[in-house]
Amino acid sequence: MTRTVIESKTKTVTIGFDEPFCVIGERINPTGRKKLAAELEAGDFSTVEKDALEQVACGAMVLDVNSGAVFTNKMAEDPRYADNNFVEPMLMKQLVEKVQALVDVPLCIDSSVPGALENGLETAEGRPLLNSVTGEEERMELVLPLVKKYNVPVVAISNDDTGISEDPDVRFAVAKKIVERAADYGIPAHDIVVDPLVMPVGAMGSAGQQVFTLVRRLRDELGVNTTCGASNISFGLPHRHGINAAFLPMAICAGMTSAIMNPVRSVEMEAIRAANFLMNNDPNGGEWIRFSRVLDAVDGGESFVEASKAAQSAGGGRGGRRGGRRRAG
Amino acid sequence: MTRTVIESKTKTVTIGFDEPFCVIGERINPTGRKKLAAELEAGDFSTVEKDALEQVACGAMVLDVNSGAVFTNKMAEDPRYADNNFVEPMLMKQLVEKVQALVDVPLCIDSSVPGALENGLETAEGRPLLNSVTGEEERMELVLPLVKKYNVPVVAISNDDTGISEDPDVRFAVAKKIVERAADYGIPAHDIVVDPLVMPVGAMGSAGQQVFTLVRRLRDELGVNTTCGASNISFGLPHRHGINAAFLPMAICAGMTSAIMNPVRSVEMEAIRAANFLMNNDPNGGEWIRFSRVLDAVDGGESFVEASKAAQSAGGGRGGRRGGRRRAG
Repeated sequence: MTRTVIESKTKTVTIGFDEPFCVIGERINPTGRKKLAAELEAGDFSTVEKDALEQVACGAMVLDVNSGAVFTNKMAEDPRYADNNFVEPMLMKQLVEKVQALVDVPLCIDSSVPGALENGLETAEGRPLLNSVTGEEERMELVLPLVKKYNVPVVAISNDDTGISEDPDVRFAVAKKIVERAADYGIPAHDIVVDPLVMPVGAMGSAGQQVFTLVRRLRDELGVNTTCGASNISFGLPHRHGINAAFLPMAICAGMTSAIMNPVRSVEMEAIRAANFLMNNDPNGGEWIRFSRVLDAVDGGESFVEASKAAQSAGGGRGGRRGGRRRAG
Repeated sequence: MTRTVIESKTKTVTIGFDEPFCVIGERINPTGRKKLAAELEAGDFSTVEKDALEQVACGAMVLDVNSGAVFTNKMAEDPRYADNNFVEPMLMKQLVEKVQALVDVPLCIDSSVPGALENGLETAEGRPLLNSVTGEEERMELVLPLVKKYNVPVVAISNDDTGISEDPDVRFAVAKKIVERAADYGIPAHDIVVDPLVMPVGAMGSAGQQVFTLVRRLRDELGVNTTCGASNISFGLPHRHGINAAFLPMAICAGMTSAIMNPVRSVEMEAIRAANFLMNNDPNGGEWIRFSRVLDAVDGGESFVEASKAAQSAGGGRGGRRGGRRRAG
């Protein structure tokens, strides 16, 4: 049984075929969020803190922390800031400190800069997930030693030096190469979480089927857990949350075990909680019944975030155990 | 390639692995609808006509016509009305006549009474779907000759003389037995649409997984199309439409090719249309984009039925071809 164990100081999250789908909150990411990047440049972490609390309240089990900010003002004063190898390691340390001071879920350390990955690994308590290695030779040589040194699991993205292939067989072969190379470093397959890469279905009609087929092969042939940037499937389409809310249960049915996504969206979270129940990973539907009360509050006019926070502070928590105790009491 | 062909006088619907999911509208069914039964007893077909038009507007590709009414008033006057073998054949003929005079989709002739099935087959134009045979010896002996005589496809329900097994292997074996027995009558497997039986996940935690596994086996090992009473999965649960809307895409991902369901529900229909797109059965997302305009109207306050009717009469129709022409023009 493939179990990928991720830990904070106090919490353990297991990604696995017989576990509830692991929702990795994507929002702490200044890439493409100019306002957030400007806040961080000014030393203002209030949006990060808000995003951390809201994502956990809404059901994120792990928080992705991405340090990909561009500090345009500082860059004008000090040319060193033009280099992400200078900016990101410092920023990653700060982000990890702020987030783990506020919430107790495990973190996913996300950067293209090796120095930021290492700073994140140094700063994070417990056993974070590293995001990411690819099949590019240079990237494997840089990242896999960190994975080994810190004994952490890693996201493996199925592209290599030739780019992202539209052929799913090539993407499978890249994933296999990373798993084999990791094994050379003594890293077991259960610590590799493969991202088979999700293309927009609006641009490539076979995008959904490719993912479902790849996820099943990755599970059956390599025995690895999987993740993806789920919302990419609906890029450019109208009513994209409807596409996402069908894609996630389908991917889960095919064997997908986690996604990096926005958990502050009731439609997608409802789909995932229903899928957990239907995969027999929600004993007696306790989590579904608890979540249905949040949906009741949303139907009554509350925002999903407010309703989720209210349910959290009412003692429902996020865990199956507390729900279980309440039903038994 | 397994293709189950169903026809009205003018329309052909194909159930198949590479076809859009076949939505069979369930609403024309007086079983458990006392008010509808009383109307039919009084010769009032207005609800049937309304249900026929609404279901087709909302996206039903086939309409189930069930004659299971109990005529309590007439029963008091004439004891023959206590016998469904007397009531249903007459009623089925009337229902089929009324419905096919109004809409042009193929029908699914649904009764437990062989005389009603035969009257439905006599009255229906084209090539209706027959609903249903089971693995019960008596039922197979009664229904399979009708299937052969009228050269129609049939729904095969996976229970037999021992009842409904909770063991999916037994349900698979029952389906296999029906397919083999049908072959003895010269009925090909592509004219058998197996219902693997959906249990409520609230009562049996493995209910969802059982269906997904069974559907895959039925497809891979018997090469048959499949159907189900989809809403049964969520029986007794809060926010059951959320469960249904995850179950349908998961079942479709596993290989389910049709369902008998209520199409007058935007949540479920949205999930199915998204799943069609994600299974590469909606070229260029034409149907999704058309449907998204219906969702826009619903977001703007219209009912799903009204928005669907407006889209239908605006010339969008239900077919991919008309949508395609509009995009090309």
